[in-house]
Amino acid sequence: MGLALAETLLEHGHPTTVWNRTPEKANSLVTKGVHRAGTVAEAVSASPVTIVCLKDYETMYAVLDTAGDALKDRALVNLNSGTPNEAHAAVGWATERGAAYMDGAIMVPPPLVGHPDSVFLYSGSQDVFDEHRATLAGMGDPRYLGSDPSLAVLYNAALLDMMYATMNGFLHATALVGSANVSAVTFADLALNWFMPSVVDSTLTEQAPDLDKGNYPGDVGTMEMNLNALEHITRTCVEQGIHSEQPRLMKAIAEQAIAEGSSGKNYLAVLEVFKKATPPS
Amino acid sequence: MGLALAETLLEHGHPTTVWNRTPEKANSLVTKGVHRAGTVAEAVSASPVTIVCLKDYETMYAVLDTAGDALKDRALVNLNSGTPNEAHAAVGWATERGAAYMDGAIMVPPPLVGHPDSVFLYSGSQDVFDEHRATLAGMGDPRYLGSDPSLAVLYNAALLDMMYATMNGFLHATALVGSANVSAVTFADLALNWFMPSVVDSTLTEQAPDLDKGNYPGDVGTMEMNLNALEHITRTCVEQGIHSEQPRLMKAIAEQAIAEGSSGKNYLAVLEVFKKATPPS
Repeated sequence: MGLALAETLLEHGHPTTVWNRTPEKANSLVTKGVHRAGTVAEAVSASPVTIVCLKDYETMYAVLDTAGDALKDRALVNLNSGTPNEAHAAVGWATERGAAYMDGAIMVPPPLVGHPDSVFLYSGSQDVFDEHRATLAGMGDPRYLGSDPSLAVLYNAALLDMMYATMNGFLHATALVGSANVSAVTFADLALNWFMPSVVDSTLTEQAPDLDKGNYPGDVGTMEMNLNALEHITRTCVEQGIHSEQPRLMKAIAEQAIAEGSSGKNYLAVLEVFKKATPPS
Repeated sequence: MGLALAETLLEHGHPTTVWNRTPEKANSLVTKGVHRAGTVAEAVSASPVTIVCLKDYETMYAVLDTAGDALKDRALVNLNSGTPNEAHAAVGWATERGAAYMDGAIMVPPPLVGHPDSVFLYSGSQDVFDEHRATLAGMGDPRYLGSDPSLAVLYNAALLDMMYATMNGFLHATALVGSANVSAVTFADLALNWFMPSVVDSTLTEQAPDLDKGNYPGDVGTMEMNLNALEHITRTCVEQGIHSEQPRLMKAIAEQAIAEGSSGKNYLAVLEVFKKATPPS
């Protein structure tokens, strides 16, 4: 990922200095005109903004602590993933060293870095975002989420959470039609090219304002009707001899919604179940 | 749903006869020119094709058994939902009565019936589909899935399975960002207008041929890396005080994939877990 970031910055005309624990990893970049720093302090001192993409916050602290006071009065943009608490703690760490801190998250794989549609999420210091927006735009589409530094990692976790649930939904449905020898390619054509955009995503987008209001009118379909559908799906999975834990959990969540007061409301009321911590078992 | 079907058939110029257990339900249709039959036998006898939309297969059998031998040499299209075994059984039932049988599933809510983009799935007798295609096209976009009569109800269950998993993924992610007071409308803009179509659906569509081949190369990301991400998501949910059963199950499924031989493969290898029945607990 570091390679992709440095390369696209250089291509967008930004003088770029790199540092990596294994200096040889930058060989291809040096050929293209990137400057390789011998120490972290030299790398940080070379530019008004330092972009860090490491394994985790602990690694970032360990690496940057070797830079002495080089971070003072500079901007630090951290792109590794972590938890909201870790992002909050990083602001304190950076402030002690005199650096303005912005957290971030890269929402695309390395081959898509540099593409103008590739979203990069940022939160924390708005000054850093405003001042270095042109640089950030060289890596992708920069979106500033707010001054709460934890927003970027939180959005990142939420988008991945949704991605895994959707992938699991598609893969499980593929296994279900596969039990009657329907190919994934055949199913994907209907499921991903028509059903997802035309029925699922558009319905959710339309209903998002109601989620914010906690307004779940059951006039078109009630939680009980959806529970019936989930029971039917689970029964079909068992009948076809495929894995059934995923629909079974969805059924249990709908049952919990009914037990907790969402009887007669529409399906989106399961949001109320999700808002509350799972009791320790 | 029956009202919507009859109304759109009439609007498309098909002479239409209806029967309902509660005759008054058809009053609005009769005003518009639909013929109301006094008995099921009269309704079936009025047309070459009978379209049935009832609660379940048992209800269909009970209603149509009152028609005597009226079904003989006619086409029967059944649009209620059920399991693949029930669809198979219905062919035998119809054959005994001399009717050609096609099963079907309506993939849109009543207000979208009649729209040319609204998909109706059909399976079973291809003769029925070919002969009555123009009539069926009056209700929506007719898609013939194959001669196996269970395909329509199976696709229906699979598409709904995927829909619920995706809705749950979005709602759970909304609860996660909501823990930092991000609104559903704000999150939906990024999640549904950009991330789902641009990242998730397009990746799955591209990789569908590999699913059919059981080809899961881990060169861009391994199951272990995805398990790490799912552990991170689960930790974030706990830290933010929201429900964590859904990411926890996804984590367990990825662990199962690794335990069953998908170590080092990419995430789509969870399909292999889903293909096998859950052992009874």
